[in-house]
Amino acid sequence: MGLTYAMIGGGIGAFIGEVHRKAIALDNTASLVAGALSSTPEKSIESAKQLGLPEDRSYGSWQELVEHEPKRKDTVDFVVIVTPNGTHFEIAEACLNAGFNVVIDKPMTTTTEEARELAHLANEKGLVCALTYTYSGYPMIREAAELVRSGTLGKIRRVEVNYIQGWLAESIEKTGQKQASWRMDPKQAGAGGALGDIGTHAEHLASFVTGLEIEALSAELTSFGEGRVLDDDAMIRIRYAGGAKGSISVSQVCIGEENSISLGVFGDKGSVRWSHDNPNDLRVSTLEGGTRLVTRGQGGLSERAAAATRTPPGHPEGYLEAFANIYRGVAELVNAQKSGSVVGPLGQDVPGPAAGVDGMRFIERVIESSVSDGKWV
Amino acid sequence: MGLTYAMIGGGIGAFIGEVHRKAIALDNTASLVAGALSSTPEKSIESAKQLGLPEDRSYGSWQELVEHEPKRKDTVDFVVIVTPNGTHFEIAEACLNAGFNVVIDKPMTTTTEEARELAHLANEKGLVCALTYTYSGYPMIREAAELVRSGTLGKIRRVEVNYIQGWLAESIEKTGQKQASWRMDPKQAGAGGALGDIGTHAEHLASFVTGLEIEALSAELTSFGEGRVLDDDAMIRIRYAGGAKGSISVSQVCIGEENSISLGVFGDKGSVRWSHDNPNDLRVSTLEGGTRLVTRGQGGLSERAAAATRTPPGHPEGYLEAFANIYRGVAELVNAQKSGSVVGPLGQDVPGPAAGVDGMRFIERVIESSVSDGKWV
Amino acid sequence: MGLTYAMIGGGIGAFIGEVHRKAIALDNTASLVAGALSSTPEKSIESAKQLGLPEDRSYGSWQELVEHEPKRKDTVDFVVIVTPNGTHFEIAEACLNAGFNVVIDKPMTTTTEEARELAHLANEKGLVCALTYTYSGYPMIREAAELVRSGTLGKIRRVEVNYIQGWLAESIEKTGQKQASWRMDPKQAGAGGALGDIGTHAEHLASFVTGLEIEALSAELTSFGEGRVLDDDAMIRIRYAGGAKGSISVSQVCIGEENSISLGVFGDKGSVRWSHDNPNDLRVSTLEGGTRLVTRGQGGLSERAAAATRTPPGHPEGYLEAFANIYRGVAELVNAQKSGSVVGPLGQDVPGPAAGVDGMRFIERVIESSVSDGKWV
Amino acid sequence: MGLTYAMIGGGIGAFIGEVHRKAIALDNTASLVAGALSSTPEKSIESAKQLGLPEDRSYGSWQELVEHEPKRKDTVDFVVIVTPNGTHFEIAEACLNAGFNVVIDKPMTTTTEEARELAHLANEKGLVCALTYTYSGYPMIREAAELVRSGTLGKIRRVEVNYIQGWLAESIEKTGQKQASWRMDPKQAGAGGALGDIGTHAEHLASFVTGLEIEALSAELTSFGEGRVLDDDAMIRIRYAGGAKGSISVSQVCIGEENSISLGVFGDKGSVRWSHDNPNDLRVSTLEGGTRLVTRGQGGLSERAAAATRTPPGHPEGYLEAFANIYRGVAELVNAQKSGSVVGPLGQDVPGPAAGVDGMRFIERVIESSVSDGKWV
Repeated sequence: MGLTYAMIGGGIGAFIGEVHRKAIALDNTASLVAGALSSTPEKSIESAKQLGLPEDRSYGSWQELVEHEPKRKDTVDFVVIVTPNGTHFEIAEACLNAGFNVVIDKPMTTTTEEARELAHLANEKGLVCALTYTYSGYPMIREAAELVRSGTLGKIRRVEVNYIQGWLAESIEKTGQKQASWRMDPKQAGAGGALGDIGTHAEHLASFVTGLEIEALSAELTSFGEGRVLDDDAMIRIRYAGGAKGSISVSQVCIGEENSISLGVFGDKGSVRWSHDNPNDLRVSTLEGGTRLVTRGQGGLSERAAAATRTPPGHPEGYLEAFANIYRGVAELVNAQKSGSVVGPLGQDVPGPAAGVDGMRFIERVIESSVSDGKWV
Repeated sequence: MGLTYAMIGGGIGAFIGEVHRKAIALDNTASLVAGALSSTPEKSIESAKQLGLPEDRSYGSWQELVEHEPKRKDTVDFVVIVTPNGTHFEIAEACLNAGFNVVIDKPMTTTTEEARELAHLANEKGLVCALTYTYSGYPMIREAAELVRSGTLGKIRRVEVNYIQGWLAESIEKTGQKQASWRMDPKQAGAGGALGDIGTHAEHLASFVTGLEIEALSAELTSFGEGRVLDDDAMIRIRYAGGAKGSISVSQVCIGEENSISLGVFGDKGSVRWSHDNPNDLRVSTLEGGTRLVTRGQGGLSERAAAATRTPPGHPEGYLEAFANIYRGVAELVNAQKSGSVVGPLGQDVPGPAAGVDGMRFIERVIESSVSDGKWV
Repeated sequence: MGLTYAMIGGGIGAFIGEVHRKAIALDNTASLVAGALSSTPEKSIESAKQLGLPEDRSYGSWQELVEHEPKRKDTVDFVVIVTPNGTHFEIAEACLNAGFNVVIDKPMTTTTEEARELAHLANEKGLVCALTYTYSGYPMIREAAELVRSGTLGKIRRVEVNYIQGWLAESIEKTGQKQASWRMDPKQAGAGGALGDIGTHAEHLASFVTGLEIEALSAELTSFGEGRVLDDDAMIRIRYAGGAKGSISVSQVCIGEENSISLGVFGDKGSVRWSHDNPNDLRVSTLEGGTRLVTRGQGGLSERAAAATRTPPGHPEGYLEAFANIYRGVAELVNAQKSGSVVGPLGQDVPGPAAGVDGMRFIERVIESSVSDGKWV
Repeated sequence: MGLTYAMIGGGIGAFIGEVHRKAIALDNTASLVAGALSSTPEKSIESAKQLGLPEDRSYGSWQELVEHEPKRKDTVDFVVIVTPNGTHFEIAEACLNAGFNVVIDKPMTTTTEEARELAHLANEKGLVCALTYTYSGYPMIREAAELVRSGTLGKIRRVEVNYIQGWLAESIEKTGQKQASWRMDPKQAGAGGALGDIGTHAEHLASFVTGLEIEALSAELTSFGEGRVLDDDAMIRIRYAGGAKGSISVSQVCIGEENSISLGVFGDKGSVRWSHDNPNDLRVSTLEGGTRLVTRGQGGLSERAAAATRTPPGHPEGYLEAFANIYRGVAELVNAQKSGSVVGPLGQDVPGPAAGVDGMRFIERVIESSVSDGKWV
């Protein structure tokens, strides 16, 4: 027992790196033992010191880490990549080639081509390549997915996802705000702004819950913020294989909204509605049974949902717990790889390279549709 | 004092006619004194008897009403038309030609051409022609409109309206359910299904609050219900004059949703969010001031909102009160016409023929875009 | 057909009189044809003129009304008494003695003795004596009562009612605010402040839904407002016959609360929770069935609840509609009296003189317990 | 760096021990290095093995741990005691005497006398003695406390706490359900049932936020569950020093309620309302400023609240994060003790022995009042 991991990116002042570390720590899933935490060697070493990493595993660059770590007998079980999107491909490719399992913060890369290459590489080498699509880690989202899978909702007709934030209402990237700066810089973020940052979450959430494949989509991207090159708003319509339709609204300029992501999935027998405002609840309606309030932690949940909860009903779990569920799944996959143990429901729900590729195709097609005036692509 | 009105349509078993009557009665706005309540003379007479109408003003058909009522010295102050959409034009035209003010249940007609003719006729004759876009009658919607008008929200960037119901998830029109049958019959409902029934409400709500003009739209209509000719689902994107964008989702096949209409309007200085689930509340956010919970009936509301409330805060008003606000406005307009009294804020907020024309154009353009695969029109 | 009524009190500027009039008008339940609308003859006449009453039925005082109305062939079917609490007894007694059915705004009187006399008088003469305990008029409250009655919740164990307002946080009665002035004046309001104004609503709501009888209670009254004689806050514990317990919190000094009344009833098999914030919803939980969201207007409601709704689910009804339900019930009772028609579910749910007496006893016992330091009485 | 801790109790199948471990792990606050995890030596050893403890620090009993651990050079920085309430005193006393800082799951002991002894012992020896009153760990509760402290709400008048659960509606302790069995056994739980289990949380929450001291209280305890000796329901009224009043309702027999704890604090200038249903929000009302929705993670929060959050607004934190905040505070206290570092806001908000004593007195006085029929004590 006792998995170990290394982290690339996520040094002092980074937001998402700290989230990953807490998510891994919460369930004692793995120990951080090595890192190349910044693109600047000095900051990298300094960050490692603050996190209490051993000196000989505090690397100045990811290249050093990829070179030296594999040689160690006690080398890490997986590498977490939390650098800006634009560097994901290069780093992940090197890690996979060095034989590391990888966890990549979404979106996977900046092009579908790159994503496919990584997916291919991971499959070929039999390595874990996981994407942290956080919202799929919520137990009630997994319950929703199970209600679709089991047929309780009937044939899915309609999907509605809204993911709305307000923190980019002003062009704060001009003031040097770190989170905003790289996200609104095409070189670091890739071709999608809000689309890449939160749009891919919306797409994955819909796909994770419904299992539906996108057949065509039509989109309108807008940049409302002054001087902004990348989109900060996206309106997307989807035709799924089999006749279902979807609508996705994404925005980062909606003053007053913090991180409001909500999902409705409507079939011909029933529906589920979920909102991130209270992620511990799921409203389930059926033609026959009316509307029930299903809550995390209660009896009668599917194995998938039950495996992803820690505390009794009424003791709310949140964002870090959802994140941590993905890592518990990663651990199941890594342990299966190491010791042949059976992959449980958490491992089966880990977003893998296919989800990463889908995310990249989604970004590319949305942009393609938007520049051709909303043509279905 | 004491306005009077006649009703065309709305006999026994009709839903919306009774709503109009209660809305008019609530504030003692006017008295029902004449009617042609059904297309079947016998049912018409029988319905009139049940409502206690005088025999000589209980007409067997709307044609009789239009012929005889104008000759009376005590003729009515306005006529309420609550027949299926397909007959609105003919009846309203006759009423206007006979010199009656009219209130027409939305949508105004079945074609833009007809709507324009009615609008022209009403203007020419100086008659009131009001449309009952109910949701604009809610005090907090009027407060929202005032917050836009006064510039509190800054330049509007983004509008989001979702209007979702579930009662047509099954094709109950086949079983003879009266409300469903005419709504899903193109002859009676016009070219729009969900689009005409509730989509026009969504469009009007957005337009009423923001005052923005639609420059182009792109839409996708779907008929999920088995054997259904008209749409029961619509996804619409809008480009407004001036650069704002809008997304409207409309559906009547979303099991578990009753009559869920919600609105978000986001400007570059602030936003408002409103949901029909609790129509007495408005969430108002500004860059400077954070998020406030503004409630109907409290001090400090705009005159438009204050004029539209009856009870103190915490004593919820609902659908009938919103409806009744439109009629109180109609009464202001009629009284101004009769006695030259000043039109107050309620009268100014009555949806008039221009709103009716906009609604019809909206329906036509949505259908046009949808059949041309979502082209911007 | 066409019932008529007279109103005593409720002239220009009064709050609750207008509420009664709108509630009666909404469903065309009865027509206002006579009134003594103020304790000042001039204001009385002036108010009558504004409401369009015939001159010969616009009385200067309630004494005149009680003297002259009964002599008319077209005398009213019932009298509505909406004067300050302190005058209820005298007026209602005179009305009953004159043979009038009466509707009295709660609380019934200022002493239990008086209430008992009125109850006795009404019974003796076979007259309707109704109390407008508004909250019992909400359809979902009637559904809750039916769930108790039918045994769905099992044996009731625990009742929780909170009724909290903030409008008397400051001693606005000193500034002459009309609503506050009489309510905080023992001569006009009786011995209870918040207790009489809203505490009796809380007590009635609990009793209406559970049908339980209070065996003993223990209470603590407080006057927080500077210079206030009457209570503005009450905390009450109840032992019901049969072993159930109840807790009632009442306050009018809770800044930020508008009119927040909520109810929880918990049995050994299930529970209901309701809040005035969204009066159209009821949360129903059972040991076996989990938690369901039951909404007004949907299918499957009890006859009592269904009879009390007007609009489909998702079209919110509010305070005036609840009020109007009580009057629809009064009309059923009056019509049964006049024509022997059967009293339907609305009539059966009208709060009668027994509820009025219970309310007065409740006030007296709460005060008695509070002055004896919370002794059980 | 790197604090270490030992745990007493919390072996396989225990609920709260695992919660403590996750709360400590989340922020990498300390490492578990020793344990006596069960009262049965075999289970203790087995549990330690499963948690990966070193063999020589896997003790068969807490006595062994207290005997051997202090002799180690690398002895732990604190001991976490998560055994049934009845054993807290004996174990904590031994730990303090052995020189250990302790964290005790609430309630502190089974009598006030014992609690005072522990408090005295901890003070005398200068050791940390923390109680895990979880709800005080929520950032918005700390914001509420700061709003009281800073005078924003004015003089506090009224406190309302409701803490309601339903899991003991049936007497599941008879079926051997582990969590229920010890809680409803006076020997293990002490004299309070629901009172000790959740009532003390309610009391502490009120006291933590308001800083008010209880002057007298009056209570009614009930045992609804068949065959139950301890209370499963409590209704408590409080008179605070200075004139404020409080009402606390506690129950574990309310079917449909999971873990619903809510707080209202009302002053003469403003109020705060908080509910565990959405612990990331706080509603703040003032006479001047209306009602604002204040959310965890947003700018402008007090240092106390800001220090207790990890993720941006809209990324919900829950129960484990609140728990973890208490441990982050414990670490601040322990580090101050070890290295003289300054105690930050998290350390200052750690519930200490005084809170533990208050909790025990509260339990004793509530029982005293209840057995004397609600007398103020």
